[in-house]
Amino acid sequence: MKAIPEPSLRRLPVYLELLRELREQGVEDISCTQIGERTGQDPTQIRKDLSHAGAVGKPRVGFNVAETCEQLVDFLGWRKNVDAFLVGAGAMGTALLGHELFLKQGLNIVAAFDIDPRKVGSEIHGFEIFHLDTMNSLARRMNIGIGIITTPAATAQDVADSLISCGIRGIWNFTPVRLQTPGHVIAVNAALSSSLGVLCSRLAMPQP
Amino acid sequence: MKAIPEPSLRRLPVYLELLRELREQGVEDISCTQIGERTGQDPTQIRKDLSHAGAVGKPRVGFNVAETCEQLVDFLGWRKNVDAFLVGAGAMGTALLGHELFLKQGLNIVAAFDIDPRKVGSEIHGFEIFHLDTMNSLARRMNIGIGIITTPAATAQDVADSLISCGIRGIWNFTPVRLQTPGHVIAVNAALSSSLGVLCSRLAMPQP
Repeated sequence: MKAIPEPSLRRLPVYLELLRELREQGVEDISCTQIGERTGQDPTQIRKDLSHAGAVGKPRVGFNVAETCEQLVDFLGWRKNVDAFLVGAGAMGTALLGHELFLKQGLNIVAAFDIDPRKVGSEIHGFEIFHLDTMNSLARRMNIGIGIITTPAATAQDVADSLISCGIRGIWNFTPVRLQTPGHVIAVNAALSSSLGVLCSRLAMPQP
Repeated sequence: MKAIPEPSLRRLPVYLELLRELREQGVEDISCTQIGERTGQDPTQIRKDLSHAGAVGKPRVGFNVAETCEQLVDFLGWRKNVDAFLVGAGAMGTALLGHELFLKQGLNIVAAFDIDPRKVGSEIHGFEIFHLDTMNSLARRMNIGIGIITTPAATAQDVADSLISCGIRGIWNFTPVRLQTPGHVIAVNAALSSSLGVLCSRLAMPQP
């Protein structure tokens, strides 16, 4: 199987969100042109993106909505929830703990950690905050796939190292730090500043 | 000037973060190969991305770090801060209000709004939360460029419409909704689910 380019991969969750909405509305089939109208993407690109996930439309009918949803969920690895640890119960960590959509997206946060004595032992959105020192022993009894880092930048690499020693294989990094990780660990930056950059640079362009 | 492709644009803030760090460390020049080692991008692609922003390296010397920083800040429209309204003081809104990095990235949140009577009048990270009904009259006295939407999905389009009637030209959308906006308004999705999709699908791939 040919590897999917990252820009295509980034668009698949957007299509999935739309298709899930349409499925709830009872829509059965949709064309690339219609997906394009709703997402602002080029129809030819949409067809290409979806084909990476194994979804193929029928001429004059388009894509079966329910079937394509399932194919995208499978391709994105969202069929089975992955258990995750979150480290850093500050503003961003608190926001993520309160985010309701993640379970639909394969992510099951099972525990949250901090080192601030005012936070350790407290409860945020139903999660007890544990001291970071207890992470390793907690991890031994679980099968944690993903570590989410929402600490200040200065401690991000140390936290990544600790998470990796807990056996996690994926890191979702909300700090601006470029983490050094061994080859078997996949680190992805949430890159809030990338979408902000897109917005600001477009605003700064002369108006047509 | 040829329009820069969005994937290139998304990478520029990442290079800028690295270059700022290097400038603080006193590094004078850097090659695309070195930028590639630190960011995981292909050097040829980096050269291309930077050239869109007008940055050109010298043979055998590379890019002047300080100069390239300035060129990127200019290109990204981050030279001058844009004033912004934030609507929705829930978990994600609170996280953004507490985020220290935005000023470096051209964004100056000047006021935050909600409709929840328990939030209106309270203070979050130093911001007073105003009732959404007061937004229009507040906007008249200011020059607000960007609206940040961190409300529940169901109200996102209404909030976008209100922001647009306040005269904003850019929307940074943290909801999964695809907003309908007039042609002169630029809406960018923060797309947290896109980076989560990249992470989960890579984790789900068979290990080499």
